[in-house]
Amino acid sequence: MNGVVLNGSASSVTDFSAWMAAQGARVEQALSDWVPASTPAGLGEAMRYAVLDGGKRLRPLLVLAAAEAVQGHAEAALRAACAAELIHAYSLVHDDMPCMDNDVLRRGKPTVHVQFGEATALLAGDALQALAFELLTPEGDAVPPAMQADLCRLLACAAGAHGMAGGQAIDLASVGKPLAEPELRAMHRLKTGALLQGSVRMGAACASDVPTAARKALDDYGAAIGLAFQVVDDILDVTADSAALGKTAGKDAAADKPTYVSLLGLAASQALADELRAQAHGALDASGLRDVSRLRALADLVVNRKN
Amino acid sequence: MNGVVLNGSASSVTDFSAWMAAQGARVEQALSDWVPASTPAGLGEAMRYAVLDGGKRLRPLLVLAAAEAVQGHAEAALRAACAAELIHAYSLVHDDMPCMDNDVLRRGKPTVHVQFGEATALLAGDALQALAFELLTPEGDAVPPAMQADLCRLLACAAGAHGMAGGQAIDLASVGKPLAEPELRAMHRLKTGALLQGSVRMGAACASDVPTAARKALDDYGAAIGLAFQVVDDILDVTADSAALGKTAGKDAAADKPTYVSLLGLAASQALADELRAQAHGALDASGLRDVSRLRALADLVVNRKN
Repeated sequence: MNGVVLNGSASSVTDFSAWMAAQGARVEQALSDWVPASTPAGLGEAMRYAVLDGGKRLRPLLVLAAAEAVQGHAEAALRAACAAELIHAYSLVHDDMPCMDNDVLRRGKPTVHVQFGEATALLAGDALQALAFELLTPEGDAVPPAMQADLCRLLACAAGAHGMAGGQAIDLASVGKPLAEPELRAMHRLKTGALLQGSVRMGAACASDVPTAARKALDDYGAAIGLAFQVVDDILDVTADSAALGKTAGKDAAADKPTYVSLLGLAASQALADELRAQAHGALDASGLRDVSRLRALADLVVNRKN
Repeated sequence: MNGVVLNGSASSVTDFSAWMAAQGARVEQALSDWVPASTPAGLGEAMRYAVLDGGKRLRPLLVLAAAEAVQGHAEAALRAACAAELIHAYSLVHDDMPCMDNDVLRRGKPTVHVQFGEATALLAGDALQALAFELLTPEGDAVPPAMQADLCRLLACAAGAHGMAGGQAIDLASVGKPLAEPELRAMHRLKTGALLQGSVRMGAACASDVPTAARKALDDYGAAIGLAFQVVDDILDVTADSAALGKTAGKDAAADKPTYVSLLGLAASQALADELRAQAHGALDASGLRDVSRLRALADLVVNRKN
């Protein structure tokens, strides 16, 4: 900052960037500490490859921002942030496998099964999911036990058959099928939305005294940005190139998968993303919580991102 | 029983059979209630296929017997029993996939990927793991929150990189390699032993007032039967046929995997199984717990089983 006085808007952007960098570094360090290097038969190596040095860390940032908004338990929030990222990372490892999307490039690197073989990729994903729940349940009183249980419940629901895994099953079943917008929305609400919304919920669960109305508002926020994320993903799939994305661009269209762009067109998809951002901001305004600036900025980030 | 007076030994065997049938039916009903039938895109169908109407339910029985030994919380124990079985079931689904053991027969039925396709098998396994943690964390006070957290921790550790998944990684890496007995033991301690021992630990965690010495004794019991299970598995792989096993017999030998039989021979393997049973019984005798008859009988079952 060099002592320069910034106007409000630019200052808050700079402040958010600094917050994001600082939290990102904390999460990176925690993941590096917690994803085991020394495990049998090189499994930890594949797990670390899948998790470290990559990604936007959006889910951890959502957990931490929501926890900040409710002045939540710091250790619980950091563990929940990492746990959400582990679930995300395992889903990418499995999703990239030949029997699913068969992708070879992820975050600019060869995918885990390309690098380590399919069997190790399968096991590394499985072990990452287990590790997420291990992180949430430290022995002793570092995190209150009731909070541990709440976090496990929220993460399990977000990840399972009525969340992320269910959404992926719909995705699989819908290749080459025309979906109407409500069906596409239902798919994405689970496939991507459940874990994004779940991350916000986990952050909110890091305090035990959050008013019901505030929890509901954060839920609405999470639902809006969860869907916005996918709409923007669909936009970027046709407007960005593989180098910017760090993964194969244009693959949804090539795979004949229904997307917001194929359904609504590019302009209407962008308008939908903007509307969802406004909904997210509106939910924060209605939350009655004071410290929602990080969550507000994260909604902007979700819609404005270029990769 | 028809009113016939049985001598002590036969009576206790009959009593154990009745207990096992009753508990098995409870677990079966609970699994049928808790593994969702209505999930997106047929995922629940694959999950139920993987879990219901099959298997010895050894892990649930261990959880319930250990919980009985410590007079543990009944609802927690039933949930933990089902959660352990879901982890076991998911591991079989993934283990049978072409990139792992590539097996087509399990519990006398086509394996999940044969029946539903590889992608659905992958997702069903992932969703079963998440469901295990969901079962352990019911909302409200049906299970004390601290107990929920303890159960999640124990299950996550048993399933993850330092447990079952780690053991599978060693197994993968050891095909065609000569292993000495300590290495083979280390592999099985994780691959099969961690979840069996974890099941006993979860049962013990269904009470909060178990003396440290009793917990330690139950741990020793779990370690002994965990290894015994695998030794007997190796014996059955060469002595039983596929029809009795409900899965492909002789496949470890065919895959050039190290086994107890290949390492020690059949007679010494049987002697080891008997010794481990004696260790398990000894641990129960030393536990100071009164109601260990189910655990004792389960150790016999593990060693005497024919499939």
